[in-house]
This record gives sequence, C-alpha cells and structure tokens, in this order.
Amino acid sequence: MSPADRHPRQDGPVRGRPRSEAVERAIMEGVLKLLEDGVPLAELSIERIARTAGVGKAAIYRRWSGKEALFVDVVRAAEPPDAELPGTSVRDDVVALLEQVRRRGLMTRSSVLLHNVIAQMKRSPKIWEAYHTEVVEPRRRKQHALLLRGQRSGELRADIDVDVMNDIVFGPMLVRAVMRPDAELPEGLAEQMADAVLEGLRPVSSPSP
Amino acid sequence: MSPADRHPRQDGPVRGRPRSEAVERAIMEGVLKLLEDGVPLAELSIERIARTAGVGKAAIYRRWSGKEALFVDVVRAAEPPDAELPGTSVRDDVVALLEQVRRRGLMTRSSVLLHNVIAQMKRSPKIWEAYHTEVVEPRRRKQHALLLRGQRSGELRADIDVDVMNDIVFGPMLVRAVMRPDAELPEGLAEQMADAVLEGLRPVSSPSP
Repeated sequence: MSPADRHPRQDGPVRGRPRSEAVERAIMEGVLKLLEDGVPLAELSIERIARTAGVGKAAIYRRWSGKEALFVDVVRAAEPPDAELPGTSVRDDVVALLEQVRRRGLMTRSSVLLHNVIAQMKRSPKIWEAYHTEVVEPRRRKQHALLLRGQRSGELRADIDVDVMNDIVFGPMLVRAVMRPDAELPEGLAEQMADAVLEGLRPVSSPSP
Repeated sequence: MSPADRHPRQDGPVRGRPRSEAVERAIMEGVLKLLEDGVPLAELSIERIARTAGVGKAAIYRRWSGKEALFVDVVRAAEPPDAELPGTSVRDDVVALLEQVRRRGLMTRSSVLLHNVIAQMKRSPKIWEAYHTEVVEPRRRKQHALLLRGQRSGELRADIDVDVMNDIVFGPMLVRAVMRPDAELPEGLAEQMADAVLEGLRPVSSPSP
C-alpha cells in the first residue's frame, strides 16, 4: 500500500501539495543534516539552510517566520508525536500523557542529536522561548484541561488548585525525564506514577481512621 | 550578645581561627563582588579573586582545590541553609524538606545575583558537576533516607521503589521552584503538596470500594 492509498484525497488531482511537502521536508532535513554535521545552532543561518536543502531562501521564509520557528518545527518533528487520549477515565488519560513524557525522555537519552539540540536550544533564549510557546505551553494546557475535567466529574479532588495539581501529577515524570538524565524510565512507570498520586503514598492496608 | 557569646568555645584561647574565618569570608565576598559587578564566571580567575579579596593566591588554594570548589561554596552560602528535620513523623519531615525547596525557589526569584549565578553555573559543566556532587546529591540522599525510614516504619507504602517515590514526593516542588520560574510559591504549599501525595488525589468523600 502506497502512502497515497493510506491517505486518499477526496476529489480531483493533487495540486502542488506533494511538491510543497517535499520542499518542507528537504528544508527540515537540511537543518538536521547541518546539526548532525556538528554545526552550532548560532551558525545555522537561513542562507546556509537553504543552500544545504537546495532551495531558495524565499522558500523558507514562505513557510516559517524565521530561524526560531523553523527550528522549533524540526525539534517537534524529531520528538514522538502527541498521542490521542483514550478519553475513558481521567486516570487513563493521565497515564497516556505521562507516557508521552516518558517516551520523550527515552528519546532524548537515545538520540545524541536530539540531546545536543535541546542543550543548544536552552542556550538560545529566543529559540527556547519559541519552543516553550509552541510546544511546552500547549502540552501544559492539555494537562490542565484534563485535570479540570477530572475535578468537575468528581474523579479528582476539587480542593487543590489545578495548577498545583498539574505539578503533583506530571512533575514527577518531568523531573525524571528532563532533570535527571541518568534516571531509569522503565515501562509501566506512567501507570505506577498515575496510580501512586491518585491513591496516595500511605500504605494500602492501613486502617481508615 | 556578641557572636562569640552565642557560640562559646569550650576551652583555651581562640587560636588563629577568627583570622582564618575573616580570610575565608573576604575571599567569598570577593567572588560575590566580582559577580555583582557583572564579571562572567568564565573570567573569574583565582588571581582576580585573590586581588579583589586582598589576599594571596596561596590563601585560596589552601582552602579550596580550585575555582569550582570555591564557587560551589559561594552559592551554598548564598542559599538558605538546610533546616533541621523535626523527626516526629515522616509527613512533618517531608514538609520540612519541601519547604527548603520552596524557600530556595523564592530566593532564586528575588535575588538577581543568585539567579544569574545559577544560570551561569549550568553553562559550565565542571562547576555544575561540582555543585551536583557537593550540594544536590547530598540533599537527595537525605530525602532518600527519610522515605526509606517511612517505608520501614509503615508510614509509607513499601511497594514503590524509593527512587521513584522520591520524584513523586519532591518532584512537584522541584519542577515549580526550578523549571517554572514564573510559578507562585505561596506559604503553605509544602504542607499541601505533602498531604496531597500522601493521601492521594481521589476525592476524600468518595466511598471505598
């Protein structure tokens, strides 16, 4: 089955789109190639990217507002895509979002390129800010909406500020994935963390007061 | 009451110690002065520190193995000191350690100097490593010992790996204090986070199964 069969277009001939996607891919791969060759982020000019990708500078500026926006897209494409939430219970959706953080952590550990890119990104305030606005904040908003849904449905306590609850639920995996690069991220960790914060760390067998 | 009255020495005359402490203080204040003047960490040589403090280079090398060790001590002295744990219950000790993380977060927010110093430290792998070995890891060992004590006493579930439990208990405040510099750190947050992870995020009123 060809990619076209998997995503059949509704009607008419395909107009210029594959060509445009090919250009986009060539540009993003150009950035990756330069990074793989060890070119520091600060030296990645639009001109150099265009030359490497074999396109004109205008082709880049037509698609991205500048180096920062393009770079954020390259990193986003290199990271695991955001998973669909099962939507059954808040617990299952929390597990799905924690699992994404775990997978991104694993990827950063295994991909030297992604690791270096993220380290370089942190040193460039403009790109770091763009990454936060484009990637990190939407993720946090998704987490926020989920916890709010849980408070409204009665699956979660409503006496804790959603913003604080966000750090309680997602902070542990975030710390482990991002701040502690040597920590293990075993399979099943998302489920374990979700259940631990939902049920609490008191012994299960302890008698109720 | 003079400082000497508060910390009376057991016996005999004070031998050279105040002089040594004065030198130590002068050196550490010299580093702070240079940093306040905006001298980047990379340009802080032992020679320059000695000149600013009005001491010889030997006086520094007698006390610190090098720039990294001295710098870690300067940061440690600028941060709030580690509090004594009440030692009554694991819950109260967890609150005390969380409160320390909260206070350090507040301090980094209010002290431009400390903020800049930590940012610069992260860019210097050698100093960052020294800071981790000397300051961060001992703190984590303290947290680890506390949680292990709780598992042994039956105050905490024993079916969760202590290392994972550490991130569940201390990760939320760490994320808020360090990774989210715009987040609020209100009084009472340590208590709220400790109780939330201990009792769980399920509604208190929900019937037991």
